[in-house]
Amino acid sequence: MARILITGAHGFIGRHLAKSLALAGNVVIGLGHGNWPPLHAQRWGLVYWLNGEIDIPNLRSIQKQFGTVDIVYHLAGGSSVGAAIANPREDFHRTVSSTVELLEWLRQEASKSILVAVSSAAVYGAGHIGQIAETARPNPFSPYGHHKHIMESLCISYSESYQLKVVIGRLFSVYGEGLRKQLLWDVCSQLEVHPDQILLGGSGNELRDWTAVTDVVRALSFIHTEANLPPKVINIGTGRGTNVRTIVEGVGQAWAADTNLSPEIEFSGKARAGDPQSLIAQSDQLAALGFEWQKDLMEGLADYVRWFRSESGARS
Amino acid sequence: MARILITGAHGFIGRHLAKSLALAGNVVIGLGHGNWPPLHAQRWGLVYWLNGEIDIPNLRSIQKQFGTVDIVYHLAGGSSVGAAIANPREDFHRTVSSTVELLEWLRQEASKSILVAVSSAAVYGAGHIGQIAETARPNPFSPYGHHKHIMESLCISYSESYQLKVVIGRLFSVYGEGLRKQLLWDVCSQLEVHPDQILLGGSGNELRDWTAVTDVVRALSFIHTEANLPPKVINIGTGRGTNVRTIVEGVGQAWAADTNLSPEIEFSGKARAGDPQSLIAQSDQLAALGFEWQKDLMEGLADYVRWFRSESGARS
Repeated sequence: MARILITGAHGFIGRHLAKSLALAGNVVIGLGHGNWPPLHAQRWGLVYWLNGEIDIPNLRSIQKQFGTVDIVYHLAGGSSVGAAIANPREDFHRTVSSTVELLEWLRQEASKSILVAVSSAAVYGAGHIGQIAETARPNPFSPYGHHKHIMESLCISYSESYQLKVVIGRLFSVYGEGLRKQLLWDVCSQLEVHPDQILLGGSGNELRDWTAVTDVVRALSFIHTEANLPPKVINIGTGRGTNVRTIVEGVGQAWAADTNLSPEIEFSGKARAGDPQSLIAQSDQLAALGFEWQKDLMEGLADYVRWFRSESGARS
Repeated sequence: MARILITGAHGFIGRHLAKSLALAGNVVIGLGHGNWPPLHAQRWGLVYWLNGEIDIPNLRSIQKQFGTVDIVYHLAGGSSVGAAIANPREDFHRTVSSTVELLEWLRQEASKSILVAVSSAAVYGAGHIGQIAETARPNPFSPYGHHKHIMESLCISYSESYQLKVVIGRLFSVYGEGLRKQLLWDVCSQLEVHPDQILLGGSGNELRDWTAVTDVVRALSFIHTEANLPPKVINIGTGRGTNVRTIVEGVGQAWAADTNLSPEIEFSGKARAGDPQSLIAQSDQLAALGFEWQKDLMEGLADYVRWFRSESGARS
């Protein structure tokens, strides 16, 4: 049993992580933005949710109430490439400024705590073919990717200069119940209105490493044991690439299984800003820790469709 | 004749740059921290000095008063490895937060202006042997170096996403009149008290690319023509490495030329935190622009000693 702080616990991945860690018997505290009534936060496993900035006063207040935490999972930050392009300063403050505050607090007041910094494959950016090793030279392609990379640099800087125990996990294309944006959400939202047609940006040939959120949060709880000096970077990916068209077809089939309709899928052919062609993990490091991916992709898509429809029903 | 804004114009390099650009017929405005009476700032070539943060209100106020500038030389930021290690958050705000503000202002209100971002060889960090090309993988070694690298990343990110015209100059070991810190200052300060003995940290074998500030500011005014998309990084170095012991001996000889004393030089042998073994520029890009280094190193050291003594006399 450990005391664990999750920044950004109110987000899609944060709440799955909170639930998973709480079920494993840990005391989980959350900090970040989001109006989250205590009973709702408790349903996701949190003993306490503080709606506020990642800053030293808030971190101190949590420390005073619950003692020094054993592990910090740092998920707070910008969460959309498009939003980052529209307002780069806002994304910078969410992703970078919050990290400096967290690192300063760790340096000065919690230097024995482990930091698991959750980053993104967006730091690899464009121009990669096939599996990308953690040692590949970062080449971010959007303010979102640059800021995630800067977040990593700050963690490494503090770890090197002040001996903080840090590990960085780079997430790939995470999907699952509760994700109310990105490809799967867009496809289901279109199917709900026009079950026979899907229109999307891009070419459909973009390759991504699709990872179920339930697996991703297990992986994150695996890598905390690797927090050490110098800090490691670990890809949280399966090593398998699946193109967008295949995903959309999978969602379409799961959707049609109930309705007997097969949607027509059309891509604009125009690449979206900040959207690299291929992002696939080299997954050797994670595998070496004994981690195994469990969720079958098509099964995961079907689960998502089921969840979307139950949500949709709940909304109407 | 151009309208030029220099951030950090009150610093050692900033004021030399202001003077040089003003002598060439430009209108030079300064923004940054430092209590600088108007008459003193004018002696360094500035038509206006605004003592304040690099933030959008201050940038707007300058724009309102003088119109949109043609070029921004961005020199504001932390200026000491030791200070950055002692207070990394302060160094982060000086170097990184100021840059985000400047870039936001450029993006929103001055997108045609050229940005010359002045960075440091500290982004190369440790582990390099011989000349370092601009394409070498950055490996910063201290919070100071990390923050300079982050500053560069932000400039590149904004340039890529918002088509800002940016060029980055990486400075090496800049010395000259007015520099009241670092090796030459320390050596002269010791000689002033004990003309027969110099005690220093490090091994004396550290290799650096020593560059006279008068040459460096000429180089900065050369590279502004290279501001373009995608942004270039250009080393502002000579390509020649000289070890610390040789520099100290040069200063000692210049000092002794008047006094007939030859100081004994002793190194602790203990490396200083954040101090790489070798930082030497590959200078091909700068040379290709037609730039020539003028100041002879030993002559430059002698000039420095003369300046130090005149200052010293002025203080007593």
